[in-house]
Amino acid sequence: MRQLINVPETVVEEALRGVAAAHPDLTVDVENRIVLRGDAPVAGKVGLISGGGSGHEPLHGGFVGFGMLDAACPGEVFTSPVPDQMVRAAAAVDSGAGVLFIVKNYTGDVLNFQMAQEMAEDEGVQVASVLVADDVAVEDSTHTAGRRGTGATLFVEKIAGAAAQAGEPLERVEALARRVSESSRSFGVALSACSTPAKGGPTFDLPAGELELGIGIHGEPGRERRAMMTSGEIADFAVQTVLDDLRPEGPVLALVSGLGATPLLELYGFAGEVHRVLAERRVPVARTLVGNYVTSLDMAGASVTLCRADEEMLRLWDAPVATPGLRWGA
Amino acid sequence: MRQLINVPETVVEEALRGVAAAHPDLTVDVENRIVLRGDAPVAGKVGLISGGGSGHEPLHGGFVGFGMLDAACPGEVFTSPVPDQMVRAAAAVDSGAGVLFIVKNYTGDVLNFQMAQEMAEDEGVQVASVLVADDVAVEDSTHTAGRRGTGATLFVEKIAGAAAQAGEPLERVEALARRVSESSRSFGVALSACSTPAKGGPTFDLPAGELELGIGIHGEPGRERRAMMTSGEIADFAVQTVLDDLRPEGPVLALVSGLGATPLLELYGFAGEVHRVLAERRVPVARTLVGNYVTSLDMAGASVTLCRADEEMLRLWDAPVATPGLRWGA
Repeated sequence: MRQLINVPETVVEEALRGVAAAHPDLTVDVENRIVLRGDAPVAGKVGLISGGGSGHEPLHGGFVGFGMLDAACPGEVFTSPVPDQMVRAAAAVDSGAGVLFIVKNYTGDVLNFQMAQEMAEDEGVQVASVLVADDVAVEDSTHTAGRRGTGATLFVEKIAGAAAQAGEPLERVEALARRVSESSRSFGVALSACSTPAKGGPTFDLPAGELELGIGIHGEPGRERRAMMTSGEIADFAVQTVLDDLRPEGPVLALVSGLGATPLLELYGFAGEVHRVLAERRVPVARTLVGNYVTSLDMAGASVTLCRADEEMLRLWDAPVATPGLRWGA
Repeated sequence: MRQLINVPETVVEEALRGVAAAHPDLTVDVENRIVLRGDAPVAGKVGLISGGGSGHEPLHGGFVGFGMLDAACPGEVFTSPVPDQMVRAAAAVDSGAGVLFIVKNYTGDVLNFQMAQEMAEDEGVQVASVLVADDVAVEDSTHTAGRRGTGATLFVEKIAGAAAQAGEPLERVEALARRVSESSRSFGVALSACSTPAKGGPTFDLPAGELELGIGIHGEPGRERRAMMTSGEIADFAVQTVLDDLRPEGPVLALVSGLGATPLLELYGFAGEVHRVLAERRVPVARTLVGNYVTSLDMAGASVTLCRADEEMLRLWDAPVATPGLRWGA
């Protein structure tokens, strides 16, 4: 037990109180568990809403703000939010231009966002939805039919968020979000298990000296376990696996995300190895983001996400963003 | 062993290659271990230089850029950089307006920066220096005479960096940096030991179910060990200890920094508790920064840094900054 918490039951609520205290420009509805842009609804703007189980911060609550999400709905740790959260968020951010749900592909999330979509539409909100399913490690998994949604969610939220901020209509924001989602692939590697507040210790058993290739962000099993590999070997395996599926013919946008407990010192070394492999494969890297962005509590390890980036995506990637977790140009 | 590395001997060099790959706007001298603003030297601008042992990232290399540091000199993990690094950095960033060394109070750092100052002055660079010694946990420590330098370094680098960016002369930038340093206090708590690449495992023994109050960012002993406390109890102890020494009479600037492996979910909950204690003590919080900013590799735990902030400091805090680790308004 090395958790910095009071009691497991109130972890999400207490984190939201902290978000409210640290970010007065956001509106935090602690009781209903919604993080909102302080200026929502923004007139004429499509509202972007995402959410999912807690434990992956800064995803999603840390990506609420100018140029990215209008609202995030956190569930309990590693547990889907309930439809009522998304319905309330939709009502709060809709300015009449409609809302887009960005949904990671986990069975509970998919079902609850679908139900929320029907409920919000019944209340007169126009809702579109895009699924993120970028993890090439496995087909189907503990909580998923098909591929799991991981790092590409950040790309979708940033790029679609910039388009919505620029005043693009729902139909175009949705098409763009889908294009980014379909153009992205991820692969993650765990060097340790994560510990949930409820359990107070590792949620699965990963012996010292072993790693798990293709881990999910809730500790779902990956492809295989192996004896510890070097940073370079891991980059070879992860990037190769992503490229074999992605088959980029032009520049990529790269995210090298820590899973939570891997120091930035190591993460940058790994990012250097990822660049080495991409250079060997003659894949130009247009932009690189390195840090703890799509995490799994205190899991040690990292994931690589690549997106086949066209000029429009790169322009929107570079557009100003001002959220707690991602901020530039604003 | 759960490090994402190749071999311990090249960890710093490889991280610098990753920084170079991910941040084309920086100039990274991998061989001499210096991270520089890509546009250095900036005409007429005082150059800010910091450095120290690696393992505390994003401090310091992640704070190089517009509005903050002009150069950072990373040493080996938890080991001071050598004077030659700072001398080269000074030559590279000095535009004739002089340079300011920002030095955390560890014996090796202090000696090596002093030697570098003499050498750089011999080469005709005007050098001023400010010491950061904000950690109220202990007087003297494993690597320190007097108090250790920790989280306040970020405040000094950001606020003095904004003044330098605005064209203030060396004498004023130095005085401001000293004022911020002397107006800041920190206290850190470890819930686990950290693991260095060289050792491949915990560098000290902290039994499960215990925590160390007043830990140093290299795992130096703190004040005392206790049985595990709640987030609220830890906030009570840490904030109280800082306030007893700081005695603010107006608003404070607050940093709640993770030490590396504590999830953001928990860190925000802790930030909420820190705000609660400050409200109980009737200390207004002007700004709050929450995240992994001054770390100790993969140590679990957090530190609290408070600064008695006057209007000039807050104005400079809010000024645009564009670095890999801290970025807003630019």
